[in-house]
Amino acid sequence: MEPQQRGDVEPYWRSAVSHVTPEKVFVRGYDLEDLIGGLSFTAASFLLIRGRLPTPQETRVLDAVLTAVLDYALQKPGTVAARYVVSANPSMVAGLAAATMAVGKHTLATEDTARFITSTYARFQESGKGMDAFAADEVVSLAERRQRIPGLGHPVFKKVDPRAAILRSLAVKEGLWNEPVQLYEAIHRAFTARPGRNDIPINDVGVMAAVLVGLGFSPEETTGLAVISTLPGVVAHISEELAAARPLRVVPDHDVVYTVPADRDFATDYKEAGWAPEQ
Amino acid sequence: MEPQQRGDVEPYWRSAVSHVTPEKVFVRGYDLEDLIGGLSFTAASFLLIRGRLPTPQETRVLDAVLTAVLDYALQKPGTVAARYVVSANPSMVAGLAAATMAVGKHTLATEDTARFITSTYARFQESGKGMDAFAADEVVSLAERRQRIPGLGHPVFKKVDPRAAILRSLAVKEGLWNEPVQLYEAIHRAFTARPGRNDIPINDVGVMAAVLVGLGFSPEETTGLAVISTLPGVVAHISEELAAARPLRVVPDHDVVYTVPADRDFATDYKEAGWAPEQ
Amino acid sequence: MEPQQRGDVEPYWRSAVSHVTPEKVFVRGYDLEDLIGGLSFTAASFLLIRGRLPTPQETRVLDAVLTAVLDYALQKPGTVAARYVVSANPSMVAGLAAATMAVGKHTLATEDTARFITSTYARFQESGKGMDAFAADEVVSLAERRQRIPGLGHPVFKKVDPRAAILRSLAVKEGLWNEPVQLYEAIHRAFTARPGRNDIPINDVGVMAAVLVGLGFSPEETTGLAVISTLPGVVAHISEELAAARPLRVVPDHDVVYTVPADRDFATDYKEAGWAPEQ
Amino acid sequence: MEPQQRGDVEPYWRSAVSHVTPEKVFVRGYDLEDLIGGLSFTAASFLLIRGRLPTPQETRVLDAVLTAVLDYALQKPGTVAARYVVSANPSMVAGLAAATMAVGKHTLATEDTARFITSTYARFQESGKGMDAFAADEVVSLAERRQRIPGLGHPVFKKVDPRAAILRSLAVKEGLWNEPVQLYEAIHRAFTARPGRNDIPINDVGVMAAVLVGLGFSPEETTGLAVISTLPGVVAHISEELAAARPLRVVPDHDVVYTVPADRDFATDYKEAGWAPEQ
Repeated sequence: MEPQQRGDVEPYWRSAVSHVTPEKVFVRGYDLEDLIGGLSFTAASFLLIRGRLPTPQETRVLDAVLTAVLDYALQKPGTVAARYVVSANPSMVAGLAAATMAVGKHTLATEDTARFITSTYARFQESGKGMDAFAADEVVSLAERRQRIPGLGHPVFKKVDPRAAILRSLAVKEGLWNEPVQLYEAIHRAFTARPGRNDIPINDVGVMAAVLVGLGFSPEETTGLAVISTLPGVVAHISEELAAARPLRVVPDHDVVYTVPADRDFATDYKEAGWAPEQ
Repeated sequence: MEPQQRGDVEPYWRSAVSHVTPEKVFVRGYDLEDLIGGLSFTAASFLLIRGRLPTPQETRVLDAVLTAVLDYALQKPGTVAARYVVSANPSMVAGLAAATMAVGKHTLATEDTARFITSTYARFQESGKGMDAFAADEVVSLAERRQRIPGLGHPVFKKVDPRAAILRSLAVKEGLWNEPVQLYEAIHRAFTARPGRNDIPINDVGVMAAVLVGLGFSPEETTGLAVISTLPGVVAHISEELAAARPLRVVPDHDVVYTVPADRDFATDYKEAGWAPEQ
Repeated sequence: MEPQQRGDVEPYWRSAVSHVTPEKVFVRGYDLEDLIGGLSFTAASFLLIRGRLPTPQETRVLDAVLTAVLDYALQKPGTVAARYVVSANPSMVAGLAAATMAVGKHTLATEDTARFITSTYARFQESGKGMDAFAADEVVSLAERRQRIPGLGHPVFKKVDPRAAILRSLAVKEGLWNEPVQLYEAIHRAFTARPGRNDIPINDVGVMAAVLVGLGFSPEETTGLAVISTLPGVVAHISEELAAARPLRVVPDHDVVYTVPADRDFATDYKEAGWAPEQ
Repeated sequence: MEPQQRGDVEPYWRSAVSHVTPEKVFVRGYDLEDLIGGLSFTAASFLLIRGRLPTPQETRVLDAVLTAVLDYALQKPGTVAARYVVSANPSMVAGLAAATMAVGKHTLATEDTARFITSTYARFQESGKGMDAFAADEVVSLAERRQRIPGLGHPVFKKVDPRAAILRSLAVKEGLWNEPVQLYEAIHRAFTARPGRNDIPINDVGVMAAVLVGLGFSPEETTGLAVISTLPGVVAHISEELAAARPLRVVPDHDVVYTVPADRDFATDYKEAGWAPEQ
C-alpha cells in the first residue's frame, strides 16, 4: 500500500500541532526530547497553543494568569459536581470531566470578555479614532443597545478587585499591558465615568481574559487555559473525596423541600388519561 | 453565623420531581411500584419531564419523535467520538458522555428551533393577527434582520424530507399538530413562497422540535429528549467497538497531512526568545 | 477518486449498526422510514443493540427494566452533579454528560452483576452439574475466596426488595425468567441458606442485571441501558434547575467544616522550601 | 426532623484545600494574593495537591513529568474524539471533557503503575529483605500468578525509551530518584534478567508514574496530573479544528465497511416476532 500516492485527493485532516515519526515526536517543530524538562509546563502550554516559544516575560504573565484562581473551596459548582460524581463513580477522569463541563456562562466566562475585546479592538483599529474617544463612543452605543460589558463587577469588591489588580500590575511590569488590553481599560474608564457606576471594578475573569488576549490567545483558547488553571484544585478535591470514602453523596434532607404529592392514584389517573385498563 | 436557628430559613433546594421515603419512592406523586412495567419508558419519560401522565396519543407521537433518528452510522460525530474514547478507556459511561457532549450547534439542534417557535408563538398570540398574515410579516422582518429560520433545509432532500413527513402525518393523525406547530409551518410556507426558495423543506430536526413544542416541552427539554433518542444507537456502536478490541484508535496516516516542521532548533530559538541558556 | 478500488487493504472501521445511503437510512437492515412510529422507543432500543426485532414479551420486560428506577430525588449523586453543573454552565448537554459519568462502582452497577452471571453461567454449562448443586458449590468457593456476590443486599429492605419482586414477577409472567437468571437466583438461595444471611434480598440493580442478561445483553450493554433509564429523570431535574435560575450553586456554609489554616506565611515558607527570594 | 438543633451534628462536608472568606481566599493556608504570579503553575499544582510548597528540585522534576508527553498528533484517541465533538458542538469545554474521558486502561494509565509501586513498596518495607532480593522474589511470584508488571514495554523502543531516560536522569540529578522508584527499577532489572526479556524497557508512562509516586502523589493523583499534562495540546487541536470550520466530521467512506443488510422487510419480520399488525 502506498497511501501517499493517493494523488489528487485532499486528505480529510490537516494538523500543525505535532508529528509522530517512528522514533521521534516533533511538537510545533521541536524534538520532544529537547522540551522535556527544558521548559516549564507553562511555557510548553504557550508553545503548543500559540505555535512559538514564549519569552520569559510572556511566561511569567501566563503563570500569573494560571495561578489567579487556583481554588474556590466548595463555592465553585464544578468542584462540587466533581465530588458528587466520584462519590458514585470513584474515577479521577470522570470527576475532572464533570468539573470541566461546569465552566460556562456563569463561571470563568473569559470567552465572552475575550470575544468582546477582540472584536472591539478590530473595530477600533479601523476607526481611526483616538482610544479614549473611541471608548467613550462605544460606551454610549452599548448603553443604547442595552448591551452589558462583560468582565465587570464583583459581588464583594468595590472599585478594585485585588486579584485583578495584581494580574494587571504584573502584565504592566512585564511590558505586556498592550493595546487591546488598554482599550478594554479605556472602555471601563468611560463606563465608570457615568453616574452611579464609579464603584464597578474589572473583575478577575475580566483581567484574565484581557491579559490572555494581549498574549495573543483566541477567545476559545482563553477558556481552555481557564479550565486548565482550575484543574489542579479539582484534583486536590477529588483526592480528598476519594480519601473520605463516603460512597453516594446526597443532598442532606435539611437542605431540601420536596414538593411532590404522595397521593396520586395511578390506576385512576391512567384511565382518565385515556388508556384502557389492560393496555 | 447561626445556622442552627434555621426555623424560618428557606431551604437551599426545592424539587417536585420525586420523593424518597424510607420504604417508598414517589415519582411525580405516583408510587414507583405502580409504574414499573405499568407504562412504557416513553410514557414514563413524559410523566417525569412534564409532570403528568400522557394520553395514548401523546405517547405515540413522542415514540415517533424518539425513533425519528435512531442511528446515523459513522456519519455522526458523537458516535465516532464515543468509539475513539472507548478504544482508549473501555468504559460504556465514558463513551456515552462523549456522544452526549457532541450534541450542539451543528447537530440535533432542536433547541434553537424550539426556542424560535416558542418565542414566535408567544408574539403571535399577542399580535391579534391571523396566522398567515403574521407569518408573512414575520418572514419579511426576519429577512430584513438577515436572521435564519432554524430547522429548514437539507443537503439531500428537496421539497420534502421523508422522515419529517412521517412525523408530521403521525402528529396530524393523533390530533397533536396544534397551533405552535401550525404557526411554524405557516412561516415555512411564507418563506418558500419567496422566489428561489420553493425547494427548501422543514428538515427532521425542525419537525422534531416543532412536535415536541406542541407536546409542551421547553426548548432545553427538547435537547434532552433528542440526546436520549440517539443513545441506544451509541450503546450499539460502543458495544461493537469494545468487541472489535482495537485499542487506541488513531486517524489513519493516509487521511492526514501534517504541516509540522521537523527542523526547528530548540537551543537556538530558546535563546532567541530571551531565555538565558541555563535558566 | 475511486476509493472502492483500494483493493487489498482492510478498511480501518467496520460497522453493522446502520448504513446511510444518499436517500435512505438502514438501521440493522430496516428502512428507517418503516421504523419511525412503527415501534416503541423501547423496541427500537432492543433492535439497535441486539440486532433483531424484539417480541412483545421481550419489549414489555425491557420496558419494566427501563422504568424500574426512574428517579431518586436529590439522593442520587449524578442528579445532584448535573444540577451543580448547569447552575454554572446552563446547558442540558453538559448536565446529562455529568449525570452519565456518575454511573459506576457505587451506583447502578449492573455491569458487575451481569459479568458475574454471564461468567458463572458459562462455567455452569460446562460443569455438567445440576443447578442447585452447582450453586451450592459456588457459594462455598466464593466464601473461601472472600468474594462478594454482586447485586445482593439493600440498606432498607430485608428479605424482599419490592421493586425487584415486581421486575421478577413480570419476567416470569412473560416467560423470560430463563436459565442464567434462574442460576443467579439459585446462588442467592444457597447464599441465604447460610446462617445469619437469611434476610439479604436480591436488590433492584441485581434483578435489573439478571433480567437484562436473560434478554441477551452484554455486561457493558446493561450499563448503557441503566444510564438511559435514568436520563428522563435527569432531564426533569436539569429543567427544574434552569427554571430555578440560581446561578452558581455552592455547598451551603452550614454543611461544611473547612480545616484550612489561615496563617501560613508565604514568603517565609517559600524561602524555607529552598527558593531564592527573587527566583 | 430537627435540623435546627445542629449544635453537635457532624457537618456533611470537610475540606482542607482552600477557604473563602468575604475578602480573602486562603489556598492550603496561603493568601491567594501572595501566590498569584508568586510561583509557577507547576509549583502551585504541587501545593494544591500535596498541601505544601514544593522545593525547586521537586518543581523541576514535576515540570519534566508535565512536559513528558505534550502531544501525540492524531494518534491519540482523546485528541481525535475532542475534534469530532467540537465539529458538532463548537465548545472548548465539551472537547476538553471528551479528551479527558479518553484517559484510561489503554492510554496514560499511570494509575495502574503507581498503584503497583505503592503497594509493592509497602510490602517491601515490611519484608526486611534487601531490595534486589525482594525484587527477584517479587518477579518470580508475579510470573507464577501470571501477573503483568505495568509500565513496561514499548511498540517501537527496545531496551530504552528515550523520553523515559530523560525523565529518569532529571529525577536522579535533582536527588528525587528515591526508594519507591529504585524498587520499581530493581523489579524491572530482575524481570529483564529472565531469558527473552532483556529488551523490554520501562516506558514513558511507567517512569512518569514512578517519579510521581516518588514525589508523594497517590495513584489517582498521578492520573489527574497526566490528564492536565495533555490538555494544552488538546486546546491547540480544538482551536485548530474550530478554525478549520468543517462542521460535522464523519469517518470518510473509504475507511469503513458497512456490513448492514439493506433488504430486511419490517412488516414481515414484525409479524414474525409476534406483533399483531395493528398493535
